[in-house]
Amino acid sequence: MMSYDTDNIFAKILRGEIPSQKVYEDNAVVAFMDVMPQGEGHTLVVPKAPSRNLLDADPATFGALFAVVQKIAVAVKKAFSADGVTIQQFNEPAAGQSVYHLHVHVLPRFEGVPLKPHTGAMEKPEVLAANAEKIRAALASA
Amino acid sequence: MMSYDTDNIFAKILRGEIPSQKVYEDNAVVAFMDVMPQGEGHTLVVPKAPSRNLLDADPATFGALFAVVQKIAVAVKKAFSADGVTIQQFNEPAAGQSVYHLHVHVLPRFEGVPLKPHTGAMEKPEVLAANAEKIRAALASA
Repeated sequence: MMSYDTDNIFAKILRGEIPSQKVYEDNAVVAFMDVMPQGEGHTLVVPKAPSRNLLDADPATFGALFAVVQKIAVAVKKAFSADGVTIQQFNEPAAGQSVYHLHVHVLPRFEGVPLKPHTGAMEKPEVLAANAEKIRAALASA
Repeated sequence: MMSYDTDNIFAKILRGEIPSQKVYEDNAVVAFMDVMPQGEGHTLVVPKAPSRNLLDADPATFGALFAVVQKIAVAVKKAFSADGVTIQQFNEPAAGQSVYHLHVHVLPRFEGVPLKPHTGAMEKPEVLAANAEKIRAALASA
């Protein structure tokens, strides 16, 4: 098992060193927009506790983490009038992991619309900001 | 939100009305081999509590559920000498859900090997049994 790198991009977001479009935060968990979305409303849910991925995480953190995953899943379904929600979580490069701080992908899904491949193309900041506002509104009215 | 159908195939597996290759069971959670695997060692982790999917589940169940997802992820990585592990969970048909009892997919991943599409092709029972035995052995030696 490789060790946790405190300079990964999500650690920097958690420390406020890099900006993010945050939609939710509590003592243990943060949710923000994926800057390279594979679909409209693609959101990441991230525990504050450091771990490389699910394999080395403290299982005591999972209750709070996945309660927020559920909140965000319900909120994005409402915010984007989605038909469904896909949850993905990748461990190690062979599984598609590219940032080494545990994170859960929450992807609104629409009938007949496949997920876009993870190309690395950045979404426009104003689009991310508008989508984040829709999710915050859905959370507030839950 | 559609209601929970007590005759879904995972409810029948939980009641023992349909056989499965079980690798783990505790008071709250069961894990068994996916009979239509998208890769070697594809395992499902299922809470005993009834819910259609993540959207309507009792969040109090998530701590126990994802602690088992972690156990199984670590075990399949060891059992199949995998390079990584992908976790997927689908909500509603647009997201790829086909059985309407909450379940989490645990997929061992290997460098350069894409997941197979969900074709509906059944794996041979003896292959599932052999893979289940490998996972049980990995869990026992954890």
